This record gives sequence, structure tokens and C-alpha cells, in this order.
Amino acid sequence: MIYFDNSATTYMYPEALDTYVKVNQSFFGNPSSLHKLGTLADNLLQQSRKQVADLLSVSPKEIFFTSGGTEGDNWVIKGTAMEKRMYGKHLITSSIEHPAVSRSMQQLEKLGFEVTYLPVNKEGLISVTDLKEAIREDTILVSLIAVNNEVGSIQPIKEVGELLKNHPTIHFHVDAVQAVTEFNQILLHPRIDFLVLSAHKFHGPKGVGIVYKKHGKRIAPLLSGGGQESGERSSTENIGGIAATAKALRMTIERKEAARQKELAIRDYIRSFLEQYPNVQLFSHEEGAAHILCFALQGVRGEVMVHAFEQEDIIISTTSACSSKKGEVPATLESMSVPSEWSKCAVRLSFGEENTMEEAKRFTEVFKQLHKKFNIIQK
Amino acid sequence: MIYFDNSATTYMYPEALDTYVKVNQSFFGNPSSLHKLGTLADNLLQQSRKQVADLLSVSPKEIFFTSGGTEGDNWVIKGTAMEKRMYGKHLITSSIEHPAVSRSMQQLEKLGFEVTYLPVNKEGLISVTDLKEAIREDTILVSLIAVNNEVGSIQPIKEVGELLKNHPTIHFHVDAVQAVTEFNQILLHPRIDFLVLSAHKFHGPKGVGIVYKKHGKRIAPLLSGGGQESGERSSTENIGGIAATAKALRMTIERKEAARQKELAIRDYIRSFLEQYPNVQLFSHEEGAAHILCFALQGVRGEVMVHAFEQEDIIISTTSACSSKKGEVPATLESMSVPSEWSKCAVRLSFGEENTMEEAKRFTEVFKQLHKKFNIIQK
Ligand SMILES: Cc1ncc(COP(=O)(O)O)c(C=O)c1O
Ligand SMILES: Cc1ncc(COP(=O)(O)O)c(C=O)c1O
Repeated sequence: MIYFDNSATTYMYPEALDTYVKVNQSFFGNPSSLHKLGTLADNLLQQSRKQVADLLSVSPKEIFFTSGGTEGDNWVIKGTAMEKRMYGKHLITSSIEHPAVSRSMQQLEKLGFEVTYLPVNKEGLISVTDLKEAIREDTILVSLIAVNNEVGSIQPIKEVGELLKNHPTIHFHVDAVQAVTEFNQILLHPRIDFLVLSAHKFHGPKGVGIVYKKHGKRIAPLLSGGGQESGERSSTENIGGIAATAKALRMTIERKEAARQKELAIRDYIRSFLEQYPNVQLFSHEEGAAHILCFALQGVRGEVMVHAFEQEDIIISTTSACSSKKGEVPATLESMSVPSEWSKCAVRLSFGEENTMEEAKRFTEVFKQLHKKFNIIQK
Repeated sequence: MIYFDNSATTYMYPEALDTYVKVNQSFFGNPSSLHKLGTLADNLLQQSRKQVADLLSVSPKEIFFTSGGTEGDNWVIKGTAMEKRMYGKHLITSSIEHPAVSRSMQQLEKLGFEVTYLPVNKEGLISVTDLKEAIREDTILVSLIAVNNEVGSIQPIKEVGELLKNHPTIHFHVDAVQAVTEFNQILLHPRIDFLVLSAHKFHGPKGVGIVYKKHGKRIAPLLSGGGQESGERSSTENIGGIAATAKALRMTIERKEAARQKELAIRDYIRSFLEQYPNVQLFSHEEGAAHILCFALQGVRGEVMVHAFEQEDIIISTTSACSSKKGEVPATLESMSVPSEWSKCAVRLSFGEENTMEEAKRFTEVFKQLHKKFNIIQK
């Protein structure tokens, strides 16, 4: 089977799964407990935190573990709103955010906050000038998706970071869930205050996320309670999942450059192949993420395409897992002004380090056959 | 080693860990995906949901998976506040709630909500009359801990349920995290609207919780995003953790009656033993939960006691894991009017199905020695 749906989720590294098992067998204590089982678990927790911090070149005090990307985004956005509501009620984001961001913003709108959704161009990019113009006295947050999950466009995080140097009180949040293999290029800008990752997107466990929160930046807790994670995120720590996440992140970052080159080769091979077809439209830009390729074959609905490839043991996706069952028009494509007769035909290939050029070739062969078949049916 | 700290956390059943591993190896797809890997994962998710629903005698549509007890409590409380804020801003709870409840309430107070904290008597019980008198026109929520995590007192959930039949618009929430072995007696009252469990307290994985939400009852999402869990709780589902939770809950409920009898025997054996000592005070009432026994030896601080037992390979706890490192006076004991010179000496034993009468005897022998030793030191 060929798995080209790594943006939806990835398989768990056997090494990470192994870590999960060992920790649960031998370190099951509650890290908050005073006794030695608690201390053992706590040591492991702090070790995992340090490992993640080192990998991201930040301080362990700036790393918080959550239940995934969604909790991270909700926490930063709602937590900023609750913490800074006395200073202002205006937030800025893009029109192609993951629903974890856009729906959090919508909830805040119901509570009296005001949100500016920056438009994007045909490549799925915001304009830094638009952002500059949108900033107001009462702006408390700028939240941007680093790599879009539907088409892979990479926002100009660095330029935004430079702009926001002039506005030091505005929280700058980056949803980096899809950006792990693009790390160096975009994420290490010092003006970023908050950054969110999700372990199951990099071969870690589902249900674990990472939030980088810059030292001194304050947000209200989303989960309040027993005071874990320095009082910022309560709940008994999922120590097995956290240790497995640290492991998976280390492995991912070690292999990152090789993975990226491989994904790029696969993406560009399929890209060049698809460009031959006049009735195929590509929505992912060449400058976008190495692991995402979004396109449409005219007149063939996304879900038909997904199932046709599935028959041939090739797993692809309509544009995003969350929208796929609801038959919604893909939000990102709509914002990119793609007409709905095209966007409803969109499918997404998303690559991972385990994919090979042979798989890319197999994909093109199957596409050839399907193209013929669909063309005959349409005539 | 003797583990008497099951209220802090439990070891994971090997069968549940096995389920976690198998699911992650063979069903790693995103349940929201259209393709067969998604469908396989989704089937497993729905199967787990049905299994949990059957065990709790409710409908699968009323079961939601979260990241733990803390998220469940925060969701129900903050979600009720956000959903019903137009109707009223008054909430009622007890003064001996877990911080996941009490700190959520405190956050709401900062946002302009009003909270009544019902007092408790020396047995750690609220009075239903007090509750009745606290209810106002603008009350939107009553939130009660079924079994207190520090002393094991069991609130009169049934009586409260009867009372609240006259107030059908008030949400009735029960934190049942410590109540799994006391299930039948207290939890299946039909007036309960919301009920929260945490898997790691019943030999399931850490980082997974269950929320029962009665059909038709509405709360705002705490985690908004991709629309998972019928749009009520977004984030890619931790399918391995969820399947393991369903497994652990089934095993726990199957063994529940036997476990309870065993825990009761152990508790009462130790209880009778401790009652011989005039300088020991018991804070847990006989009518309380079978698995919790809280007491103090006059003049010996809780953490000293914990470490003394630890030297003998017996794991016990100061009153709760979350408060233990902060050296706080145990909140529940304070509310029960226990003077601080006693409450700072409190320790908690909490039993599980794997504990034995031999372990209880060993505990009493060690206590005898320690009592002698501490008495000598004190003189
Ligand atoms: C860009 C982006 N943000 C947030 C999320 C949410 O992550 P999770 O599913 O771990 O909650 C996802 C994936 O689902 C994503 O692709
Ligand atoms: C009564 C009670 N409620 C809530 C919680 C929170 O559960 P969790 O640690 O899974 O978030 C706990 C345990 O920590 C508890 O004992």
C-alpha cells in the first residue's frame, strides 16, 4: 500500500511506540507525587521537556505539553483573549487557517471580540502590507498558519516577525503543525511568541501536542486545575505519550533534511507529470512545502478520485481530513479564489520520509489509467 | 513494593497497553479520512464509544472522549458558562472540589460570573438544604464531586438529582473521576446531565477522559476546530488511547464488585488498627468510598510520613498528588474544619484491585514500628 496522506496523520515510529510501552510499564507514577514513583516519572517528564526544548533551541521553561494541535491553538488564542481583554479586543489571522484557529476566532467573535481575516493571493499567501494596515491600537494577537494543511503554502513568517518588532505587545502565534520538515527556514524567528506542534504529524502518538510559549508571555489557562505544567496547563501528565513525542521529534529532526529532499523529489516528479495534462489544475505552488501537493482533475470529484486510487492501494485525501466527510468546499481553495467547480475536484497528496520514487512512479501510472477511464466515462 | 496510591494514578492494565500498541500498529489512519484507513479507524472509534456507552447504560451519542478529567471538568463548566451566559451567571459547587472544578470556577469569577461554594460538614458532605437555598433564578450549573479525592466522602448525588428535578434548566454536572468503583450506588441517577471520568484512574492510559453529556444538553466547545466528536470536541482522535480506555473500563466494571469488597476489607482492617492509637485521627468516614483512607499521626508531617513508608517500600501519599509538592494545606480538610496542625500531618492511602490483605498487614506492622520511632523522636 502507498500512503500519501501524511498531512492527515502519520504512522507512529516503532521506537516511539516502544518508548510509550516502556514508560507505562516502568514509570506509571503521577509526576506530581512526592514518593519515588512520582519522582521517577517527573524526572522523565523533565528530561523529555529538555529534549524538546533543545531540539527547538528554546528553554525547557518555554515548553508545555498538551493534547494536540487543536488544544494548542485554542489555548493560545482564547488564552490571549482572556488575558489581554482589558487592553484590546482585536485579533488578526489569515483566511486560510486550520479550523482549530478559525473556529476559535469565531467563538471569540460571539463574545464581543473583533477579528480581521487577511485575504490570500492565488498562491495562498497573505500580504505583509495588508497585515501592517490591519494592525490597530487594540490588536492583541496575530495568528498565522506557517504551512497551510490543504495546499502547503508557506506564510512569510520572518517578514511578519520583522514587522511585529514594532508592536512588541501584540502576541505573535504560529500554527506550525504542518511545518516540521520546513523548520529552519521559517520557524526560528525570535519575534514568535507562541508556536504549536502536534505529535501525530511527525510519527509521534495521537493526542499529544507541544506549545512553545516565550518566557514572560502570559495567557490564561484553557485547562485549569491541579497546577501541572507550571500551573499553565493542568491535568495528570501523559508521561508515556510525552516521552514518545520527544523521541519522535528527535528522530524527525535528525532525518528532516533527508526527508525534505526526498519529498521534494517525489513532489516535483508528480508535479511535472501532472502539468502535462491540460485538464489538471495544480493548487500548490512550487515555493510551498515539500510534502504537500494539491490538484484537481476537471470534472472528477475529490471523493471519486480518492476511492479510485484506493482501489489501486494508493491512499490520498480530499483536501483535509476534517472537512472530507462533510463534503464542504475546501476553505483554503475558496479563499484562493478557486471556483467551486474546480475546488470540489481537489485532492491532496502528502508525503512522508517513508515514501519512495517508486511509489511516485506507481502513482503516475495509476493516474494515467484513471485519466483515460474518467475521460471515457465523461464522453 | 506495596502501591497504596491508586487515587493519584493506577498502573495500566497490560491488556489495555496491548490494545494501545495494536491499534497504533494497525489502525493509524485519521478517523476523519474518507479512505479505508480512515474508515477502519473510525469503525474502531465508534466501537469503543458504543462499548463505553453500554457500560454506562447511556447512548453512544452521549459519550465524548477528551484528554482527561481536567479537560472534562473545564469543558462542562466553562462550556455551560459560555452557552448559558445570557440566561444567568450563577454557578453552585462545593468547597471540596478537585482544582479542575474549583479553579475553573475561579476563572469564571474573574469574567463576571458568581459562584456559591457550599460548605461541608465534618464528614465532608454538603447539605441538600444548603443547596436548595443557594439555587437562584439565574443559576445555570450545579457541579459536584461524586467521591472526594482526598478523604473519599460520597456526596448525596441522588438527593441532589431529586431536588434538581424541580429546576430542569440547571445543568447538573458530576465529577466522577474517583467514583468508578462506587458506580451503581451513586452515578446512574437520570437527572445527571454531565459526568466526567479519567482513564488513568481505572488502569487505562493517561491523557484520555470520558464525558457523558445528556442528549439535548448544550455546552460551548472548549476545543473547537476540525469538528470531531460531533463537533463538540475537536482534535484528531487518540484512537489507540480511546480503544485502550474502553478496554480498561470494561475490565474495571467487570471486576468492580470484587474490587470494592477487597478494598473495603483492606480499608476497614487498617481503619480498626489505626483507631487503637489515641494520637491518630481519621478523616475518612466509614460511609465513604471503599478505596480511600485519610488519616494523620499527630506531630508527624505528611511528607515525613510518606518518605518513612517509602523507605519500607510502601507507597502512600499526602492528601492529593496535585497539592503535594506545593506544601499547601489540603483544601478538603480545611473545608472540613480540620485544624492545620492536624491537616498538615494528613496522609492518604488509596487502594486498588491488586492490593491484598497481606499488604494491609504489612502496612500495620510498618506503622507500628514508625509510631514507636516517631514517639521516641518526639520525646
Ligand atoms: C495546521 C494544523 N493545525 C492544527 C491541527 C490540529 O491538530 P490535532 O489534530 O493534533 O488537534 C492540524 C491537524 O489536524 C493541522 O494540520
Ligand atoms: C476528582 C478528580 N477530578 C479531576 C481529576 C483530574 O483528572 P486528570 O488528571 O485526568 O486531568 C482528578 C485527578 O487528578 C480527580 O481526582
